[in-house]
Parts: sequence; structure tokens; C-alpha cells
Amino acid sequence: MSVETQLPTMRERFMAVRRLSEELCKHLAAEDFVVQTMPDVSPAKWHLAHTTWFFETFLLKKFIAGYRDYHPRYSYIFNSYYNAVGDRHCRANRGQLSRPTVAEVFEYRHAVNERMQALLEDPDPAAADEISALIELGLHHEQQHQELMITDLKHVFACSPLHPVYWNCAILYAQSTPPLRYTRFPESVQAIGHDGNGFGYDNEFPRHDKIVPAFQIGSRLITNGEYIEFITDGGYERPELWLSDGWSAVRQQQWRAPLYWDLEGNDWHYFTLNGYVKVNPYVPVCHVSFYEADAFARWKGKRLPSEEEWEVAFRNEEIAGNFVDRRYFHPVALDACSPESSQAYGDVWEWTSSPYVGYPGYRPAAGAVGEYNGKFMCNQKVLRGGSCATSQSHIRPTYRNFFYPDQRWQFMGIRLADDGLEL
Amino acid sequence: MSVETQLPTMRERFMAVRRLSEELCKHLAAEDFVVQTMPDVSPAKWHLAHTTWFFETFLLKKFIAGYRDYHPRYSYIFNSYYNAVGDRHCRANRGQLSRPTVAEVFEYRHAVNERMQALLEDPDPAAADEISALIELGLHHEQQHQELMITDLKHVFACSPLHPVYWNCAILYAQSTPPLRYTRFPESVQAIGHDGNGFGYDNEFPRHDKIVPAFQIGSRLITNGEYIEFITDGGYERPELWLSDGWSAVRQQQWRAPLYWDLEGNDWHYFTLNGYVKVNPYVPVCHVSFYEADAFARWKGKRLPSEEEWEVAFRNEEIAGNFVDRRYFHPVALDACSPESSQAYGDVWEWTSSPYVGYPGYRPAAGAVGEYNGKFMCNQKVLRGGSCATSQSHIRPTYRNFFYPDQRWQFMGIRLADDGLEL
Amino acid sequence: MSVETQLPTMRERFMAVRRLSEELCKHLAAEDFVVQTMPDVSPAKWHLAHTTWFFETFLLKKFIAGYRDYHPRYSYIFNSYYNAVGDRHCRANRGQLSRPTVAEVFEYRHAVNERMQALLEDPDPAAADEISALIELGLHHEQQHQELMITDLKHVFACSPLHPVYWNCAILYAQSTPPLRYTRFPESVQAIGHDGNGFGYDNEFPRHDKIVPAFQIGSRLITNGEYIEFITDGGYERPELWLSDGWSAVRQQQWRAPLYWDLEGNDWHYFTLNGYVKVNPYVPVCHVSFYEADAFARWKGKRLPSEEEWEVAFRNEEIAGNFVDRRYFHPVALDACSPESSQAYGDVWEWTSSPYVGYPGYRPAAGAVGEYNGKFMCNQKVLRGGSCATSQSHIRPTYRNFFYPDQRWQFMGIRLADDGLEL
Amino acid sequence: MSVETQLPTMRERFMAVRRLSEELCKHLAAEDFVVQTMPDVSPAKWHLAHTTWFFETFLLKKFIAGYRDYHPRYSYIFNSYYNAVGDRHCRANRGQLSRPTVAEVFEYRHAVNERMQALLEDPDPAAADEISALIELGLHHEQQHQELMITDLKHVFACSPLHPVYWNCAILYAQSTPPLRYTRFPESVQAIGHDGNGFGYDNEFPRHDKIVPAFQIGSRLITNGEYIEFITDGGYERPELWLSDGWSAVRQQQWRAPLYWDLEGNDWHYFTLNGYVKVNPYVPVCHVSFYEADAFARWKGKRLPSEEEWEVAFRNEEIAGNFVDRRYFHPVALDACSPESSQAYGDVWEWTSSPYVGYPGYRPAAGAVGEYNGKFMCNQKVLRGGSCATSQSHIRPTYRNFFYPDQRWQFMGIRLADDGLEL
Repeated sequence: MSVETQLPTMRERFMAVRRLSEELCKHLAAEDFVVQTMPDVSPAKWHLAHTTWFFETFLLKKFIAGYRDYHPRYSYIFNSYYNAVGDRHCRANRGQLSRPTVAEVFEYRHAVNERMQALLEDPDPAAADEISALIELGLHHEQQHQELMITDLKHVFACSPLHPVYWNCAILYAQSTPPLRYTRFPESVQAIGHDGNGFGYDNEFPRHDKIVPAFQIGSRLITNGEYIEFITDGGYERPELWLSDGWSAVRQQQWRAPLYWDLEGNDWHYFTLNGYVKVNPYVPVCHVSFYEADAFARWKGKRLPSEEEWEVAFRNEEIAGNFVDRRYFHPVALDACSPESSQAYGDVWEWTSSPYVGYPGYRPAAGAVGEYNGKFMCNQKVLRGGSCATSQSHIRPTYRNFFYPDQRWQFMGIRLADDGLEL
Repeated sequence: MSVETQLPTMRERFMAVRRLSEELCKHLAAEDFVVQTMPDVSPAKWHLAHTTWFFETFLLKKFIAGYRDYHPRYSYIFNSYYNAVGDRHCRANRGQLSRPTVAEVFEYRHAVNERMQALLEDPDPAAADEISALIELGLHHEQQHQELMITDLKHVFACSPLHPVYWNCAILYAQSTPPLRYTRFPESVQAIGHDGNGFGYDNEFPRHDKIVPAFQIGSRLITNGEYIEFITDGGYERPELWLSDGWSAVRQQQWRAPLYWDLEGNDWHYFTLNGYVKVNPYVPVCHVSFYEADAFARWKGKRLPSEEEWEVAFRNEEIAGNFVDRRYFHPVALDACSPESSQAYGDVWEWTSSPYVGYPGYRPAAGAVGEYNGKFMCNQKVLRGGSCATSQSHIRPTYRNFFYPDQRWQFMGIRLADDGLEL
Repeated sequence: MSVETQLPTMRERFMAVRRLSEELCKHLAAEDFVVQTMPDVSPAKWHLAHTTWFFETFLLKKFIAGYRDYHPRYSYIFNSYYNAVGDRHCRANRGQLSRPTVAEVFEYRHAVNERMQALLEDPDPAAADEISALIELGLHHEQQHQELMITDLKHVFACSPLHPVYWNCAILYAQSTPPLRYTRFPESVQAIGHDGNGFGYDNEFPRHDKIVPAFQIGSRLITNGEYIEFITDGGYERPELWLSDGWSAVRQQQWRAPLYWDLEGNDWHYFTLNGYVKVNPYVPVCHVSFYEADAFARWKGKRLPSEEEWEVAFRNEEIAGNFVDRRYFHPVALDACSPESSQAYGDVWEWTSSPYVGYPGYRPAAGAVGEYNGKFMCNQKVLRGGSCATSQSHIRPTYRNFFYPDQRWQFMGIRLADDGLEL
Repeated sequence: MSVETQLPTMRERFMAVRRLSEELCKHLAAEDFVVQTMPDVSPAKWHLAHTTWFFETFLLKKFIAGYRDYHPRYSYIFNSYYNAVGDRHCRANRGQLSRPTVAEVFEYRHAVNERMQALLEDPDPAAADEISALIELGLHHEQQHQELMITDLKHVFACSPLHPVYWNCAILYAQSTPPLRYTRFPESVQAIGHDGNGFGYDNEFPRHDKIVPAFQIGSRLITNGEYIEFITDGGYERPELWLSDGWSAVRQQQWRAPLYWDLEGNDWHYFTLNGYVKVNPYVPVCHVSFYEADAFARWKGKRLPSEEEWEVAFRNEEIAGNFVDRRYFHPVALDACSPESSQAYGDVWEWTSSPYVGYPGYRPAAGAVGEYNGKFMCNQKVLRGGSCATSQSHIRPTYRNFFYPDQRWQFMGIRLADDGLEL
């Protein structure tokens, strides 16, 4: 595609992505933008400003001659983790900042949007490719923060004894779910990773060949009902089901169920962004850690898939499903939706057994944006497929998300796999 | 005074005190009401709601037949520490609550105000004395929270890299301070504590005789300039000047100066509610812990006064000075103000050497309000005299404030004393 | 007494006290000397060496010309908290030192003993008074560490699943206890503190007059049986019985009974230095914190005595009772021992309501030994009367021991008092 | 090999391994067996008893009819992490146990040795294979604990201001080191993992094919001198060189050099088991974390090898080098030893880039011994090659050791690798 064609489209995409961030806040009170309920959570206004800071720092400062900072302290406040860009406010203390106000953050967004529009209308032709690539990165970055903003707001609202509703939406109540089947894949050599067509993060490269031994993989996600069986069978009290670090987490954090679940009498309830309701057994379980996913799989006599297995199994499927585009903000049951679906895309991120490391020959991008992925390649696990808080335009079969094995506040769920024995 | 006379006056006082709480918030953005920067700090909206909850819980619920809670969860959210009233939200997590919003809290205040007005207009005559006493307590309680709201907002604003100004006010820049003299008091037997005329907290009773050995006490507060001499002389590096627990605090909390002070080049600056400015050497030092006050006194070859000494020295002085009524929100130098003053009342709370314990024969009040003072009588030190954040109508010569010896975020300062040797 | 008479006696006393430290270790294995089970606990070999270091540092180095350190690193290792003497090993890490070995520590003791004997035989007459005073201090210091060594070993042995016995001794099993009566004392002015005859720590001075309002005080200590009633009545679950900081301690440290108590079925057992046995209801309760003592008193409708009340009540009693001299290492019931006794001396240290602060006009001693008492005068409570781990020759009516209100590992117990109302 | 031949040999091997554990303690004082200086460290007597408990629990209890526990509490005290075997003493508190004494632990060892000898002399023929396999496992287990005992004692001795010498041995002082070269390996499909001949842990199985892209690997280990260049170049102050979690560790743990290093003036010194000496620049660097190894590699423009690369590069080399068999207890320079060596075996464990996970198709062994490896397959990194504290008979080319990326107290060092570009 030529630069001429590309940039106009990008103007539209730029504004569409930027608008969604604000639309996701449309039901919030000013107070809701401020709170940080744990170090992993950032206040909504911080997300709104940080994504703006990304464009200001990596585009406006670089490509507009004589550009002056919108505010002298904003870089300090809204840098997340880019050491190359300088000092920054302590992450765990983002909730200590009452100022700038929400209104001031929106002004900041709009001012940067305007300057970005100007840049997009009249880019230096020599820099157009670089600009285009950085904006593409910035938009994907903002889509990631949209997802974080949703999951962070869920954590904030769940901490309130008032259980506020984030977004009212009627989801059909599911009555059943199809049986779980396993599809077998024979051993083969597979090209894993991004093929270079379209956008990809540096961590999806280089594409490389890998021997993938025979395996089988589940036809759908694990449901709340199936997970409740695990709980009822003493899943959280049996150390033999857990990794050693997982069992420590169970005891230290006193896990007894997924995050946001409460037992009222004999019935499990959970806090959702649509309200506090009884757990529906046919909906995919979510807000479980890797440790819980791994223990559940062991209890079932199965295991989690590797990321290669997941990629091989689902890379030819249509990318359709329950994304943030539907504004459900919660996984949905298959019967309510698309009983034939594998649920590979949308609903919940699927924990894989794969540690998050660089592919053979991996090289981080140069400069500050090289801090995007590479420096996190330790102690985390890969998740695949996107969730109900992900934009459909953001996900790819080769997309590698990553979180620490004890984190639960994302929409994270479970798909089972097994070695490729005959069933 | 008869109940008839008393209650009308109380209606006016009630509204005046309640209005001040809201006036103190008039320059705030909604976001400023939400943040909690350390466990000791509460968000402004929590203070506004908690003081309202006090009237709802101890007056409306008790004296209005068939009263229904304004909101079923507010008692859980806005109870501070009254075990007798039931469970409550964890203090350290008050900053996690985005809801109720500020607007909802103001509605809560106004609704309770209306019902309180109704109660005050037509009280059950048999309960009028009890109602009157509880309202009196509630108003003093709210005045205490007004002071906390100011000091908490100072902490919140000081944590922001933007250093927001809470209240713009021009304080004359001081050029000098009168010399520090000592007044001698001979040994005597003194009646200590409240004499029963007018309001007093239970911790000011019973009045009792005490032998007060001869002592001398400083004619004014210690200034920033005098405290800078202590810093410059290595005050924070010399363990022999410190109590053992004080020295631990210096090292663990890495104290090098009072709270809110920064060294820029060779000049000390501090964050005040009027802005971030250079330290004025003639202004009373504040935001020092008991440990720092005690170490400073030892460095000077003096000591802190006991609370009895303070009471004996200043109980006959007029209660006038730099209170919140002036809206300065910072201690002021003597020359800018009233060079003859002893600064005993207003400006800063003065640390005494006295541990906070009950007077001989002390009995806490019955019921939940008995938790107001008695249960804190351990590990804290008495402070006397009120501060620039105290209401003039709130303070008395016998008033006993109390904080832990390492706390610094109140307007706390230093007056020296010594044994009664001839000078 | 003349110096000539004094020093010979002191030689004998010196060796007697030094010998007791070693006798108290006679049943220990080398391994028992090494362990530190919490920061407050020091290994036995540390106590043995530290008390030796005291004589080396404050006597040998000062009064023997050209004295060379026994070992260049021992001062660093065995200094406790004397900032004036230089840097030192971190207190919480004393249990990390396997070397010097126990044998080396005993060699160190014997070498210092020999040099001390030489010093005592031929002191510089001009320094004899000072030497005498410092040795006196050193012996009292060692007696204090003997007590600590016993209580620290108890903590070490109690942490072992093997429950080792420290010292086998047959204590008659008590069958009853006399009823608890109260003796009334009218209001009076009393001279409080040490009168200057005989040894006293600086914190017992100056003697001063104090108005002591009328009070009544219990005729004996509170027993295990009485304390079990408090537990059974929900004492540890009722916040209204506790100081605020006490209630925090109950919840954070999950206290349910005194230290070393276990519930087996329906019966309380405790670990004693004589073995793990069923709790005897007639024996004085011990290993309770100030908070527990205070809560127990409140539950009984009484209070703890102030230190002045204790001193007035018991200063004319004979100093006799269950001291370390008896080698019981546990409080004993009255019937097994001396039914007429008030139990004021020996058995357990008695918590008073008095914060540990300096008496009016208090001045710490000059030099490093001035760090002995004064710098701890904050956040602690005074205890009186000595315990079953105290030497009889160490205690006095004016003796002020002090611990933090949450500490429990000393032999600490409860005596009740009340205001002086007619019964 | 037939069982008849195997068991006699095993009797000898059993006693040889058991004897080495005791020989390694021959210079220790009783006190040295007791101390635990951090949670990762276990006291030497714990290692001696735990390895004995292993034989008692998994052999004697199982294969001797009517076997009675040597001591009823030892299983509680000396179980490490086998949940299937029951409750156990808290790992972080192993240093709190003064009892059983060292002498009692040696008695325990000898008693179990005797019964094991009896079992070995007359095994139930039907169980002989199982017995043989479990003893084999127990001996490898004990060899692992011998290594831990050495590194734990190093930590204990290093914490002492006296810097005790564990083992006196003269190591030739190295004067140079050969230049670092890189050997290139082309891309190939390789069989990775144990081939089933001889003993292997379950984590070395199953052997499986893997595509190993072209790579090059360093001809020797990185030396202290090379590492000092990294330090001097600001290695510990440049976040861009570090993984994100590594940089957090640098700041939180205030790393400035490898563990046990001190800067005295301009010279680095380190504590070794042979004494505290100046750092020799030609000796392999050790006691670095994975994070430091990874940052060093990035600084050099290289990377760490994967475990497959390491295995491919060195599996055909002779297993010879600086093992515990030499009693050096420290890595040695090449020139002092064997300049042609690759240093792949012995000296230091080599960090690889590979996360510790199960090989495709991995299944843990059944029963309690199945807890040996599998449950640790998360958050750790693989190390290869053995160290100067490893027994030569313990190591194999396929041996996978594993530690957390921030651990440094083992003899851990650095070998560099790179992608297989032409040099």
C-alpha cells in the first residue's frame, strides 16, 4: 500500500481508536477515574493520559520541529516503564494523584489529537513510513490500554461495597453448553510466528520452524460449572494438584475460587461489569490464574496447551466472537451465541503452558519502543486469543499476550489439551 | 442555660459548623475528594460523610422513631472505629472507594442536616439534654475532622508532582522574630483538667490536684531558622540526641528534615497549602514528629514541657491567634502578627513530654461514644494549644490532643521548657 | 563504706554473679547457645559474651593502661545498643553467627574475669570509686542478662517440636489459692523513687513527692484459673475490652491465650522450662502482654495499678519470694509456698498502668552508660517486683523494669487495682 | 546388570556417598551446624538429617515389615516439601531448632545406615528393582544436598564478621586466561534429553527431537576480570541492559556486584570457602543471578545459550573438571588447571536462557517421589554442567538443574552464546 493511501485511512483509524477510549468512560463519574485498588491497576484517567503521552512522546516530539511539551510534568507522570524516556512517577502510587483532573486529561487528549491530525495531514514524506509504523504501534498500544482500563475499572468497582454497575447490558441467560470434545493433531513441523503480512509486535517474530508433537485440544473453553466441580472436589485444598509456587499462592492469598466470586449460602455469585449476579454454569470460567488453570487441568487428567499447539489448532479459524466491540464485557455461553464456535477468539484469554520468552533469533526493536516487549520476557506465561475486552481489530492468531502466573484480574480462562494419544 | 435557649443557639451553631466543612472544600475538584495517600489520611469525601454518619447514627437513629437508614451500606462505609456500632470498611482502603460520588455525599449531608434541623426544632423534652450533649459532641467531632481534612488534603496535594495550591492567601513575609525567653514557675500544687464549665471531652476529666515542680517555659515557638541550625549541626545524624525509637524512625523513614521540606541547592523549600515556597526562617517550624521535637530540645540542652506545665503556664491567656478562622492554613511569624503573643493558641499543636493516659479516676463515657478517647490511651503523646487548622471555638486550655510520636502530618511544632533552676 | 572494705567484697560478688551466668547454662548443648527465634531473643552465647564485653569496654579499656582488645571484632559483635561505643552487628541477626563458638566465648569470659580480678586487687586509688560504681553497674547489668538468657532460652525451646526441658525440678502441685482481697490506701503525698541508700539505676532518681490519690490493690497475683475464665468469656473476641492498639495486636498476632499456651481438646497446656504440662489453675498467670493485662482488668471491672501505687503498697514488704535463686524457673502457687505472701516480689513482673518516662528532674548518667535507660523512655510500660528469673539481690521496691506493651516473652503477670472507693 | 551384581556395588556406593556428607563437616564446630542465614539456606544438621529421613521414609518404612520410626517427631522436622508425606516444620524456621543436637543427628544417620545395610544385604527379591531404584534416587538426592550444604555453609560463614575458613586449600594463583572464542553449530534436528542408559531424573525424560537453529557458543566461562569490566562500565546502573524483573531486583536488593564481593578501596575482594581474598581476574565469575548473567550477555552483545544448545555443544565432552572431588570449593582459572578445557563440567553451574518446564510428554514419577521435580516447573531457569560443589559421579550432559532467576548463593556462572551468524 502506498503511503498516500495509508495515511488517510490511518487518520480515520486513529480517531476511531481514540474515540473508543473515551466512549468506554461514558458512564463514569469523575471519581471513578482516580482510584487505584492494587499496584497492577491504574486509574482510568492515567490510561487516558498515558496513551496520549505515547503519541506526544514518540510522534509529536520526534516529528514536529520545535515541539514544546504540552505540560512540563506530564512526561514524569504519564510515562509507564520506558527507562529510555526518563524518570517517572512510581507505578504503585498512581492512585495518589488527584491532579491533573479528568477534565484536564480530556483537554490533553484533544490537544494531542489535533496535533496528530495535523501531522497526519502533512507528514514529511521522508518520515512517512516511520510515522505510519509508530502510529500503528500507538493505536495497538491504546487498544491494549482500553482492555486494561476495563479490567482495572472492574477491580475498582468490585472493591466497593456498593458494587456499581459499569455498563448495563442484557445477556441472554444460557441454559446449556455443548459437550467438550478433543481434536487430535499429528506430529508435524510447523512455522510458528507472524508471517510479516500486516501489523505484528516484535515478540511475534521471527517466524521459525518448530517440531510440534502430536496433541489434542479441547473444542471449547472450560465453563463455570466445570470449575465449580473442581472446587467442590477440594481443588483448593489438595497440594498434589498444584505447582509448588501455585500452592504457595493459594495459601498466602487464601484463594478459594476465581477472583470476584463469593459464596452466598450454597450458591456462588460473582461481580461482573453488568452487576453482581449468580454464577451461570454454562459461561466460560474467567479470572483464574495460571496456577488455577494448571491445577484444574491436572485434576482433569489433562494439561494446558502450549502456545504452538494453540496457534496450530486455531490459526485458520475466522477471528470472530465476543470482543469489546459487542459491549458485553463478560464471556458468554456458547448456546447464547454460536454453538459451533471454538471460542478461540474473544471471551477470555487462554492460558498456555508456554513461558514467555523470545522466539529463536528474536531482536527487540531499536530505541524506547524496544522496551515494549523484550524486557518482560521472564517469569510470565503466554496467553492467546483475546477476550471480551479486546478489540476485534487488535487480535491475531500469532498474538502473544503475557501475564505473571498469579495474576487474575484480566479476563483469563482455561482451554484443556493433552498429548496426542489415541482417544 | 435552659434547654429552650440552648437549642436555638445550637441550631445556628450546628449549621455554622456544618457549613464550614463544605466551605473548606470550595476550591476542590471532584478528584481531590477521593485520594488517600497513606493509611492515616482519609479522603475529603470520607470526612464529609463520616461526620454526617455521626449525627445520623448517634442522633437520628436514636431519637427519631422509625428512622430508616439513609443508605443501607453507608454505616459500613463511614463508621471510623466504633466497634460497638458494627463492622466497617478497612481504614487503609478508604481511597479505594470511587462511590458514593462527591455529589452523593453532599446530598447525604443535606438530607441529614434537614432531619437534624427538624429534630432540633421539636425535640422530645425528656431527651433534650441528652440530644444537646450529643450534638455538642458531634459538632466538636466535626471540627476535629475539619482539621484532619485540611491536613489530609495537604498530604494529598504534596504527593502530586504538580504541587496544587489549596487556598491562595497572601501572608506577610516575616523579617524577624523576637528573642526566645524563659518564664519561671515555682513548684506548686495545681488543679489540672477541666473545671466542668462548658464543653469538654471525657479525657479532660476529672480535674485533680498535681504537684508541679518548678519549671521554666519558652516565650514563643521554635522557628524554622532555629530548626535549620539543628539540621546543619548534624541533628539527624547524631544518635545521642535521639530516643532509641526515634533514632529507628530516623533511619527507617530516612528523615532529614520536617515533612514537606526539600533541599534545593542550599535552600530549604517547603510545600504549603498556599504553594511551594522557600522556607521562611521566622515562621514556627511545623510537621515535626515528637521524636524530632524531643531531639531538638536535647540538642538545645532543654526539654519539652509536660502537659501540666503547659496548662499552668497558659491557662489564663486569651484564646486568640492564628486559627482556621483566619484561613491562613499555615503558622505565621510573630512579627507579622502579634509580637507580644506567646503563640500558645493556634499556629501549631505543641508536643508535650506527657504520654497520653487517663487522669486519675478517669472513666470513659458510656456506650459507643465512650470509644471516642479512652481506647487510644496508649503509645501516644499529648499535644496542646490548637493549630492554624483548628477552629477558635474548638480549643480550650485543658484540651488534650494526642498523636503517635512518629506522626508528622498534623501542624505540630515545638516549644521548649526546662527544670526550674535559676537562669 | 570505705573503698578498702568495698572492693574485696566486690571481688566475691563479681565472681558469684559471673558464675551464675555459667551455671544457668550447665544443662545446655552447644547448639542451644546459638539460636535466635525472634528479634527480641538473643542467643545464650551472645548474652555470655555481651556481659563480658561490658566489663572489658567500660572497665578494662578505661582503667588498664595500654589494654589491648581481647579480639578486634568482638566489640562489633557484642555491643548491644551503645551508639557511643561504635558500630555493631544487627540485633535481629545475632542468630546468624555460628562463630565465635561457645568454647571461645567461655575462654573470653575467663580471660576477662582474670583481668578484672587483677584490676580489683590493685586498683588505682584515685579511680577506686569510679571502678566500684561501674562494676556494680556491670553486675546488675549481668543479672538482667541472666534473666533475659532464661526467658530467651524458654522461647528457643518452646519453638522446638521436641519441647526440650531446660531444668528439671519438682514443683509441688498446687490445690488451691487464697481468695483475692483488696487493701485500701487513702490519698496521700508520697516520696517516690530511690532514697540514695545502696545501688539504683539512674531511672529510679530523683526521689520526688507525688500526690497519690486513694486506691486499693489486690492481695495476690491473678491466677491461670482466673485468666481462663476471661478466655472462656470471650475475652479475646470482644473489642470493647481492649485498648485500640491492643485489639490490633490481638488480630494481627492472632492471640487467643498467653504465650506458650495450647488448647488440647478442652484442656489448656503450656510449655514451661520444666516441661510441657497441663496448666495449673492456681499458679499466677504469666507471659501476658500489657494489652492482655489491661483487657483482663477491664473485664473484671478493675484496672492495673500505677507504679506509684505499687511502690506505696509494697515498699515496706520483705523482699522474699520465688526468685531465680530457687531454680524453679516458673511462678508458683501461693499454697505451695507462702499463703500469706502478697507475691509482690518474684514470680512475675507486674504490669503497671504507668508509661515509662523520666521522673521530674531526671538526668541520664554521663557517657556511654547514660544510654542504659534514658533513651528507652518512650512507648514502654513500667513493670515492678521481679520474677522467678530475677536474682533476689537484684530487685528493689523502687526498681523500674520496662517493656513494650505487646511483649510477652518475659515472666510478666497481672495484679489488679482500683480507685479508692469504699468496697 | 543383574540385581545380584548391582546391590553389592550399591552397598559400597551407599556408604561412600553417606560418608562424604560427614566428611564435608569434618572441620565444623557444633555451632556451625545450626545456623540459617536466609530462608533458602538450611542448617548443615538439617541436611544431614533430611537425607537420612529420605532413606528412612522411602526405603525403611516401605520395605521393612513392622518398621517403627526412629523418632516420632523427626518426620515432621526433616521432611522438606513432600506434601504426600504429611505436615512439616516451616522451612524458614529451620534455624530455630537447637535440638536434635548434632550428635543426635549423627546417631540418627548411623542407625539408618545400619538398617539400610541390612536391607541391602537381604532384600526381598520381588522388590529388589524398586529398592535399587529408590536407593539410586536417594544417593543422588544426598549428593544434591551435599552441594547445598556447602553453599549454605558458605552463606553462613560469609555472614560472620569473623569470616571463618571452611576448608584450607592452596589453589595456584592464576596469571592469565586463554582468549574467548566461539564455536559455531549449524541448524539441525537434535535428540534432546536422557537416552535411558544409566540413572536420570524424571525431568530429563522423555528424549525428544528438537530443531536447534544455528548458534555459536563460548569456548570458556566468563571470568571475574571480564565481569569487573561490566561493573566498571556502569552495568548495575543502566536499566536498558536488564530484564524488567532483573532491574527491580537490582534496585530492591541493591546489587552492585556478585554475591560475596566487597569493594575495598579500588580492589574487589570476595569471601571464599578458603578465606577472604582479593578477586582473581582469571577465575570464572560466580554467585551471579540469572538476571546478572543475562544483563552481562546483553552488554556484551551476546546472549545466554539455551539448554538445548548447551547439551548439543557439550554432550560429547569428557565429564572431567573441578568437582567437589577435588576439595577446592571454588572455581579455578583455566591456566591453573587445564587450558584446553571448555569448563563445561564442574566449576560453576551455567545459566541457560531456558525456562524450566517439562519436556514434551513429561510425566512425573508416581507417589511422593513424584514431587521431586515436576512441581517446581514454573518461574525457574535451567542451569547445566555442575559446579565445584557437585560430585563428578552426579552430573550428566542431560542433567537439568533449576533455580529462580534472582538466586545467587549457588556456584552459578556465565557462558555466552549467540545466534549462528558467520563470525
